[in-house]
Parts: sequence; structure tokens; C-alpha cells
Amino acid sequence: MEKKRILTGDRPTGRMHIGHLKGTLENRVKLQDEYDSFIEVANIQALADNFNNPSKVRESIYEVLCDYYAVGIDFDKSHVFIQSEVPEINEIFIYLANFATVQQIQHNPTIKTEMAQNKFEISTPLGFFLYPIHQVADILCVNADLVPVGKDQAPMVEDSRLIARKFNSTYGVKIFNEPEALYGVKVNVPGIDGNEKMGKSLNNGIYLADSEEELRTKVFKVYTDPNRIHATDPGKVEGNVAFAYLDLFANDSQKDEVEEMKKRYREGNIKDVEVKERLFEIMNAYLSPVRERRKEGESIKDELLKKALRGSREISEIAKETVKKMKKAMLIEFK
Amino acid sequence: MEKKRILTGDRPTGRMHIGHLKGTLENRVKLQDEYDSFIEVANIQALADNFNNPSKVRESIYEVLCDYYAVGIDFDKSHVFIQSEVPEINEIFIYLANFATVQQIQHNPTIKTEMAQNKFEISTPLGFFLYPIHQVADILCVNADLVPVGKDQAPMVEDSRLIARKFNSTYGVKIFNEPEALYGVKVNVPGIDGNEKMGKSLNNGIYLADSEEELRTKVFKVYTDPNRIHATDPGKVEGNVAFAYLDLFANDSQKDEVEEMKKRYREGNIKDVEVKERLFEIMNAYLSPVRERRKEGESIKDELLKKALRGSREISEIAKETVKKMKKAMLIEFK
Repeated sequence: MEKKRILTGDRPTGRMHIGHLKGTLENRVKLQDEYDSFIEVANIQALADNFNNPSKVRESIYEVLCDYYAVGIDFDKSHVFIQSEVPEINEIFIYLANFATVQQIQHNPTIKTEMAQNKFEISTPLGFFLYPIHQVADILCVNADLVPVGKDQAPMVEDSRLIARKFNSTYGVKIFNEPEALYGVKVNVPGIDGNEKMGKSLNNGIYLADSEEELRTKVFKVYTDPNRIHATDPGKVEGNVAFAYLDLFANDSQKDEVEEMKKRYREGNIKDVEVKERLFEIMNAYLSPVRERRKEGESIKDELLKKALRGSREISEIAKETVKKMKKAMLIEFK
Repeated sequence: MEKKRILTGDRPTGRMHIGHLKGTLENRVKLQDEYDSFIEVANIQALADNFNNPSKVRESIYEVLCDYYAVGIDFDKSHVFIQSEVPEINEIFIYLANFATVQQIQHNPTIKTEMAQNKFEISTPLGFFLYPIHQVADILCVNADLVPVGKDQAPMVEDSRLIARKFNSTYGVKIFNEPEALYGVKVNVPGIDGNEKMGKSLNNGIYLADSEEELRTKVFKVYTDPNRIHATDPGKVEGNVAFAYLDLFANDSQKDEVEEMKKRYREGNIKDVEVKERLFEIMNAYLSPVRERRKEGESIKDELLKKALRGSREISEIAKETVKKMKKAMLIEFK
């Protein structure tokens, strides 16, 4: 039996952090054996937001490839590819756009949020506005069966299903699957400042590329319980980033120890510095191999790019078949 | 010195009529020697409005090619091409979309009118909405110098200039010309019912493919002066379709005769039927060679398509060069 296809990806706009690691990257590594895995470096969509900063996007392609390598994505197993090297996606997008509406995009919650963040309400770049449907083209170009997403990305998968269905039914064909969302366990990785999101623009992230020293510095800055003045004050564990990270990075043999530390923290029986020291040890043990592998990745980054370009050619061939079928359905096949 | 490039085109949604003939086709024939002429059969944009009627678009491609041939467009001189056979246009569109805004489209007068006509206000297909910028990609993909348009299409050329300028200045390149509008003499060709526009949906057109009999029937139905009951009543020439057509189709040696008829009409000294009989003779003499050539075109329509496909490959090569330059500018060239 053929493996099911999954599609994931990232916009290359910077290095990846532990939010990405826990939110999606580790999951992709787990899935790459069971599924036929397509991982897109979405540089066209990154340019849509950063068209006046192309070097950032260019450099970030390498960063993201090194991050993939660092976490254990196997470039000979997963099909890592560069979006702009699969021009068929744009062609597929144009034809799918007939089955999407402007209003559908306007009501997309992600677009609404990003419109506000970018102050795009008065002047909305078209490239940005159409990206939810361009993502649909990403998904449908390889006819993905499953799209691993967080709940906040559910509209993207819903759009894909709807557009696939409309295209198929309009032309009486079965070209597209209706892809399904693959919801993972929801993982919250707060920023070191206690913000519920971690992000480059918030300057609150711990990056896979961070050195041991950088990790230590950041860990010792994590937001804990601001109302706790003395080590003997009872402290709060909820909303405490140190404990959030301990829950995320402690291995099974360390779980009991973490629970014990929480208990002592609540009782006012442990210093913040002691918690942080242990957090650093645990995180560093977890992230050291990733960091080492990332260094290795950096030394072979041209090779990684080459593999991504090879992947792009593979996806391009698949997408060409999709275009061919679509054109036949729309009666615009010429011989 | 190299000839300047001009780009024109039509959405294949039906046969072409005398409005097209006088409004643009005759002008293209005149221009094809002086300029390097690109003529696009815009079937992607036709599908945007007619995605649920692909066979209409497909058949109309042949109709339009035969109409081109009929009026004297030389397929070995002008580069006639099929839009969907130049997939690079879609790629170019995506990158140009970063330099257009949603609001710019919303304020486009053509889009406003067509939104109302199609009742698209509540649910606007994205494919339709983005077509003004897709047209910009048509124009910029071949780096046209001139775009022959009517005043109502001025925004399309303005958009092209603006987007070309923004792309160039953002990346510090000189990839795109700022194309200029080439305004012809404004030609009004009313429908046979007196409507100021002629169109298939209005069922008021005289088509290049119409037989002599069809032409006669239509000419005898043209809207004249509804208040004139008897041939002895003084009649109005203004707004009278018979005289509008006489002005358009009389040759130089017939001009005096037409002026004489107008005089007699105003004095109540000529019957409507006499005017129409003469109009038929004049129009038929004008349109007969076009009709004959169209029949010839129909008999070689597969050859015409073949030439349009050859043209498409030529344009595709030009567009590939444009894409290459754009990608280099945006730092997404990979080797």
C-alpha cells in the first residue's frame, strides 16, 4: 500500500526556535517514516511579507534548512523543497482562485490577525492577501492526504477541502483529494518573557542555533512568578515559564524530579536560581545534540540546498501532472 | 533599430463583432508592420468569468483566431498566442502582486462596473478580482512598450506603469519598461438596438461571421428615429444607428452620398427603408471580403491554432527570461 502524503512547511523569515521544535518539527520527524512527507520552504509567501527585504528571506532559507537537519529531518526520506522552484504552484493557484472568494479570505481569522499586526487594513498588498489560497495550491499541487496543523490553521485545510470539492464537481473529475487536518497535541511554548507566543519580532525566543552560553543567559532571564520576592515565599507554578519549559523538556526519568520542584516552589522551599540552574541543565542536555547537529548542517549547507533543489524538481514533476489534469478538465489542453 | 513592442488581446468568450472590428481589430492590422505586435487570446481571464462553462471558452478560442485571420491579422507577422500556454505569466503575476494592493483593485472602475454587472458584490470570485493585476503580468511579461487601449482601459496601463516602477525601484533594477497607453481615435459602435454598447449578452451585435442574410436581417432591424412615423416626417440623425453605421462603413467616395442622405432624412425626404437598403449595400461591400476570409480561416483553423501555439512558445521563452531576471533581483535564483 502506498504511504499517505503529508505536507508541511515554513516561511523562511528567520531561524527556528523551541516553539517550532515542540509545535511541529519533532512531530515531522516522527511522521517521516510512516508517511510520504513533503516539507516546503515557502519563500514566495515569505517574500509576500518581506518583498523589500529579499536578503533576509534568502539567508533564512539556509537557516531553515539547517534547522530541519538539526532536528533530524532526513533529506533523503522527506521531500524538502523550495516553493519558488516549483512554478507550477502559481499556475495551479490561478485556476483554483476561480473557486475561492475575496470574502472567504476577508473572513479568514489568520488573515484578520495578520492584517491588524501589519497595519494592512488601509493598504493591503495583494500578494499578502492571496496567500491563504496560495497555500491551498501548495497542498493541492501534491494532492496531500493530510496536513499536520494547529487548530489556528484549520481554515487553511477547510479552504483546501472546499476548493478541491468545487473544482472536482464543476468539471466532473476526481483530480483532488479533500485533504484532512492532522491535529497534534496542542503544545504551548511561551516566550522567555512570559508572552504566550515566541517570536523573532518579540525578541523572546530560544533558538535551535543558540550557543550554550546564549541558552544559559536566556534561561536565567525566564519569566517566573513576579510576586515572589524571597525564596521562602510560596510561588506560583502556573504561568511560570521555567516550569512550562521543564514540563516540555524533562525526560521521563526527570518527571518526578520536576513535580517535586513544583511542590517545593509552591511551598516556598526552593530558590528561583536553583530551578533555573536545573532547567538549564535539562534544556541543555536536550538541545545539545540538536545544536551539534545544526553545526554539522551549517558545514554542509550547500549540500542541504542541493537536496532541497532535488526535492523541488521531484515536486515540480508531481505538480506538472496536476496541472496537466486540471487543464484537461478545463478544456485548455493543447496538443 | 528594433521595433517597439505592443500588446493587445481578447478574452475568448464568443465571436467578434463590428464593435471589435472598428474599436481595435482594424487598428491592430495597421500597427502590425510598424510594431512588433503581440496579440493574446486571454483564455485564463475568460475562464475566470466562465469557469463553469469551459467549452464556451474553448470554442471561442477558435472563433477569435478565425476573426483575427478574417480581418487581416497576419499570423506570421504578429505573435498571436494563447495565455494558458504561457504559464510564466502566472509566476510573474504572483511576484508582481506584492506591488499591488487590494484597494487599488477595489477602486478600479472596470472592476467596479463588472462587479455590479455580475452581481459579485457579496461573493467575489478571487480569479475575477485579481484579473486587473494578471493583465499587468501579461503586459510586463513581454515588456511591452505600448498598449493600444480605449480610455476606459487607462487604469490597466496606469497599474502596469506603477507596478513596473515599484518593482524596479525596490530591487534597484531596470527590468521593466513603464509601458505607455496608445490611445486610438475613440470609436463608438452602438448595438443594432441603439444601446451604446454592442455585446453578445445584449443580443444586439453584427458579427464578422454573420452571413449576408443575417446582415440584411439585422440592418433592417437597426434602431433609427422612433418618433418618425412617415417618410415625410423630419427625422433625427443623432442617435440613429443607421447613420452611425453609415459613418463607420462608408468609404471616401461614399461620404458625400451619406451626407446627402442625412440632409434628406432631416428634411423628411427619404424613407427609412431606402436608408437601410443603402446601408446594407455599403456594409455588405465592406464586410464581404472579411466574411470570405473568415470562411477560409475556418477551413484552416487547426493551422491557425498551430501558429498560435508556436507564438505561445515564443512568448514563453521571452517570459522565461523575464522570470529569470525577476528571480535574480529578488535573490531567489538557485544554481
